[in-house]
Amino acid sequence: MLRRRSFQTKNIFRTTREYTRIAFKSIRSISLVPYGIHPLSTKSAKSEAPLLCEPKEPVLKSKDIPGPKSIALKKKLETIQAAGTVEFFADYEKSFGNYICDVDGNMILDIYTQISTLPLGYNHPKLLQVFQNDQNLKALINRPALGVTPGKDWPDKLSNMLQTIAPKGLSKITTMMCGSCSNENAYKAIFIWYRNKLRGDNCPSEEDKKSALLNKPPGSPNLSILSFKGGFHGRTLGTLSTSHTNYIQKLDYPAFDWPVATFPKYKYPLDQNENFNKKEDKNRLLEVKKLIDSSACKSPVAGIIVEPIQCEGGDNEASAEFFKGLQKICKEKGIAFLVDEVQTGGGITGKFWCHEHFNLDGPPDIVTFSKKLQMGGFFHKDEFVVREPYRIFHTWMGDPSKLLLLEEIIHVIEEEKLLENVNETGAYFKEGLMSIEKEFKELLHSTRGRGFFLATTCSNAATREKIVVTLKKVGIQVGVTGESSIRFRPALIFKKKHVDIFLDRFHKVLKCL
Amino acid sequence: MLRRRSFQTKNIFRTTREYTRIAFKSIRSISLVPYGIHPLSTKSAKSEAPLLCEPKEPVLKSKDIPGPKSIALKKKLETIQAAGTVEFFADYEKSFGNYICDVDGNMILDIYTQISTLPLGYNHPKLLQVFQNDQNLKALINRPALGVTPGKDWPDKLSNMLQTIAPKGLSKITTMMCGSCSNENAYKAIFIWYRNKLRGDNCPSEEDKKSALLNKPPGSPNLSILSFKGGFHGRTLGTLSTSHTNYIQKLDYPAFDWPVATFPKYKYPLDQNENFNKKEDKNRLLEVKKLIDSSACKSPVAGIIVEPIQCEGGDNEASAEFFKGLQKICKEKGIAFLVDEVQTGGGITGKFWCHEHFNLDGPPDIVTFSKKLQMGGFFHKDEFVVREPYRIFHTWMGDPSKLLLLEEIIHVIEEEKLLENVNETGAYFKEGLMSIEKEFKELLHSTRGRGFFLATTCSNAATREKIVVTLKKVGIQVGVTGESSIRFRPALIFKKKHVDIFLDRFHKVLKCL
Repeated sequence: MLRRRSFQTKNIFRTTREYTRIAFKSIRSISLVPYGIHPLSTKSAKSEAPLLCEPKEPVLKSKDIPGPKSIALKKKLETIQAAGTVEFFADYEKSFGNYICDVDGNMILDIYTQISTLPLGYNHPKLLQVFQNDQNLKALINRPALGVTPGKDWPDKLSNMLQTIAPKGLSKITTMMCGSCSNENAYKAIFIWYRNKLRGDNCPSEEDKKSALLNKPPGSPNLSILSFKGGFHGRTLGTLSTSHTNYIQKLDYPAFDWPVATFPKYKYPLDQNENFNKKEDKNRLLEVKKLIDSSACKSPVAGIIVEPIQCEGGDNEASAEFFKGLQKICKEKGIAFLVDEVQTGGGITGKFWCHEHFNLDGPPDIVTFSKKLQMGGFFHKDEFVVREPYRIFHTWMGDPSKLLLLEEIIHVIEEEKLLENVNETGAYFKEGLMSIEKEFKELLHSTRGRGFFLATTCSNAATREKIVVTLKKVGIQVGVTGESSIRFRPALIFKKKHVDIFLDRFHKVLKCL
Repeated sequence: MLRRRSFQTKNIFRTTREYTRIAFKSIRSISLVPYGIHPLSTKSAKSEAPLLCEPKEPVLKSKDIPGPKSIALKKKLETIQAAGTVEFFADYEKSFGNYICDVDGNMILDIYTQISTLPLGYNHPKLLQVFQNDQNLKALINRPALGVTPGKDWPDKLSNMLQTIAPKGLSKITTMMCGSCSNENAYKAIFIWYRNKLRGDNCPSEEDKKSALLNKPPGSPNLSILSFKGGFHGRTLGTLSTSHTNYIQKLDYPAFDWPVATFPKYKYPLDQNENFNKKEDKNRLLEVKKLIDSSACKSPVAGIIVEPIQCEGGDNEASAEFFKGLQKICKEKGIAFLVDEVQTGGGITGKFWCHEHFNLDGPPDIVTFSKKLQMGGFFHKDEFVVREPYRIFHTWMGDPSKLLLLEEIIHVIEEEKLLENVNETGAYFKEGLMSIEKEFKELLHSTRGRGFFLATTCSNAATREKIVVTLKKVGIQVGVTGESSIRFRPALIFKKKHVDIFLDRFHKVLKCL
C-alpha cells in the first residue's frame, strides 16, 4: 500500500486536483469555519487546497495574546491544576493549516505546532476523513491490548510502516505511546541485550530472579545508559536520568547515577570555524571513551543515547563525523547506539529521519520516535527483539487509532511532495533568517538547522523573551530552546508565503527592540 | 453536565428507550455485522439494546483457539516483533457487547476485556457516536500540547470530571497517558512535595540545581517510594522499582533500591479466620513502620504506593483496617499515601473507586487511574499541585479524545445503572463461583473479590493452565494473575445470562479435568 521511499513519484497535478475536491467536500460536509474568507473564492484554491481556509495573514482581535477570554479560562484551569505553562486557549474548530485560532479570535501563524507534533497543521481535510470510515471508527473505539489480542490488520499495518518509513536496515518495531515510554522501553531492550551477551547460553540464576524482585543486584544490575549534557529524552525517572537541559525538570527526584558526556559546542558560521570544530569533535569523542572506561567498575555502560540535534537543549547540532565516531565507539565497546528521533523524525529536517543526513556506517541499533508520528515506539535491529514474553510489555502497547492517522500523514507527505517542500522552503526560510541575523548582529547569532528544523540564538535570555512575546503580539507563535535560542518548528505544509509573513514581522520586531 | 454521584437517579425506562433508538440507528448507519442474529428480531431488544448484536452463547468455528487464521497472522507478526504474548487476533468490527470475535469467526465470551480496559464491552452504540460529531472529530485530529495551548473546553471538561468521578476530597487533577506514566508523575509530585516541606521558604541552592543536572545528590536525592511484594505499578524504570510480581518484568534492568514491604496474606474464607487475619494486618503494619524507620538514613521514604487489591500479584485483598492503618502511618510519618486505582478504578468493584470500600479517614493523598478511564492521570490534594512551571510536564499530557470517550462512558454508567448491575450481577457471579469451589475443593480455593473484580485460586499453576486453555476451547476468555489464580474482569454490562453461560462451561471444564 505504502511504498518505500517513494515520496516523490506521484503526479503532482492529479494529487492537487484530488486534494481540492476532498478539501471542498470536507469543508462542506463538516462545516469548517473559514473566518471571513470564503474558500471557494480563494485564488490559490487549486494549487494549495489544504491551505484554503487560512487567512491571508495573522488576524489580531485582542490587544494582547493571551487575550481576555484566554486569561479567564486560565484562571478557571488554575482552580483545578497548575497552569503556569499555558500560553493561550485554542479554538481547534476554527484553526486551519498553519494558523491556530485562539478563543479571542486571533489567528496566529503557528511555527511551533504543538511542540512539533502536527506535521500537517490543523484540520487537514484528509485527516478529518480518517475516522469517517466504519472500520477505522471501530478501531478507535475498541482499543485493544495489542500484546494480547491485536486486530486482524495489525501485522499488515506494522509491516507497511516498516516498508515505508523505517530507517534503512532496521527491520523490527516495538510500538508504545509517547516519547518517554519509547525511550524507557528501548533502554530495557538494551539492558536485556547486553546481559544476554554476558550470559551466553546460560539461564538467569535463581539469585538473579530473587534479587530482581527486590531491586537488588545481580538481578537488577548497576548498568547505565550514557547520555549528553544538553540532551533530553523524557519525563520518567529512567529517561530523566539521561536528560540534562534544565534543573527544573530533575530537581528533587532520585536519579540513576549514570555517566553524562559533553556534547560538541561549535563555533558558527561552521564553514569559517572548521579547525576549531574538528578539534571539538575529537575531544568530545575522547571524553565519551574515557567515561565508558571509567564507568566499567561502578556502572557499566550498556548503550549511548543521543539526539541527532539536541532539541530542548538549544537546537545544538553536531557533525556527521561526531555521530560516525559515536557509532564506531559503540561497536568497539560492544554497547548499543540509540538515536532518539522523537523530535527530529517525521520529515522536518528534510529527510524522514535526521540521522540519514550523517551517512552512518549502517543504521543505529535503535531509533526511537513519537511526536509527529502521533504514536511512540522504536525501530530496531533483530538482535534487540526480546524473545521471552512479557519483558517488554504494556497494557496497550500503543494505539491503533494513532497509526491510522500516521498512515494518512505518510500518504499526504508523499502526495504533496512535502519533503521537497521542507527542503526548498526550508532553504528559503534559513536564507531569510541568515540575512536578518546579518542585519541584527548585536541581537542574533548562530542561525542553524536543516529543512524546517531551524533555530537562531539571541544575545541573551531577556532579549529572547522580548522577541518571543512581541512576535506573539503580531500574531506569530514560535518556540524557545536552551538558554537563549528561538526554535522554529513549522508544519510540513509551511510555504514561502508563510515564511515571508514571518520574516517581515520578525524584521519589524527586531527593528523596534 | 455530569452530576456528582448521581449514577442512580435517572429513569431507567426513558434511558432504555433512548438506548434502543440509538442502538438501532447506529447499527443501520454504520453497518454493524450481527453474525447471523438479526438485531431487530431479537426478543430482548427493548430491554438490553447494547447487547443486541451478541450471539446467544459462544460460537465456535475453529477446532482450537487460536485457529488457523490467528496462527498464520501470529507467524507474520513474529517476522516484525516478538509475539509470544499474543493469544489470538480479533475482528473488532464483528465484536459486540461481551463477545470478542476472532479472525477465525469464533465468538468468545470475554471476561478479561483487554486487560480490564473496556468498561462497556465492544462497539457500544453510544461510544460509536462520540466521533460522529464535528467538534469531537476535530478534537481528535488536532491533538494539542495540553500544557501549552489546550482547547477552549478543557477547563470545563476537567471540572466536570472532578465533579462527577473524582474521589471525594481530591480537588485537583493531573492528566497523563497511561498507568505507568501516571504513577511515575505521581511519584515526582510526591518527591517535590516532600522536599518542599524540608526546604520551607528557602529556594533550592545553586548546588541543588547543578547536582540535579548531573544525577547527583543533593539535587537528585536518595528518596524512595515504599511498595509491597506482589504489587505492580508500571513498566518504566521508576514504577518497576515499586513492582514485584514476577522477575521477568524486572530482570536485567537497573532499579532504585527502594524498600519493599510484605502485603497481608489472609486465610480464606475470611469469616472463619478473623483472628489469624487480624494478626496478619498488625504484623504487616509493624513491618511498614520499621522499614520507614530503617530507610531514614539511606533512602528516606517520601510516600507509600499500594493497590486496593493487588491485581497482577494474584488479586490479593487486604482489609479496610490494613488500609486505614497504612494511611495513619503516612500521616504520622509525614509521607504521602498513594492509592493506585489503575486496574480497580472505574466501577468494576461496585463503587467507582475501590478504596471507597474502606471508609478511610479522609481521602488518600493521591489516586492514580488509567485503563477503564481510557486516559491516565491522578487526582490529588491541593498540596500536591506543583506551582513551578515545567516540573510535571509532558508534550501531550494526555489526549482530549480519550476524555471524550470517558465522558460518554460515565453517562452510560449512570444511565444504565451499571454500578447497580456490577453489585447485583457480581454477587450472583461470586455466589456461583463459591458454589463451584465447594464442589471442586481439590481444584479451587480462596474465591474472592468485590463486584465484578473476582478471582479464584487453582491448586497449582499447571491446573490453572489446563483450566484457562480449556475454557478458551469452549469459547470463554479469562485472565490469570499471581502464581495460580484466575482473574475475572468482565465489562460493566455483563449480565446474569452471561454469568450462567460462564458458570455452566466452567463447571463442565472442571468436571472433565
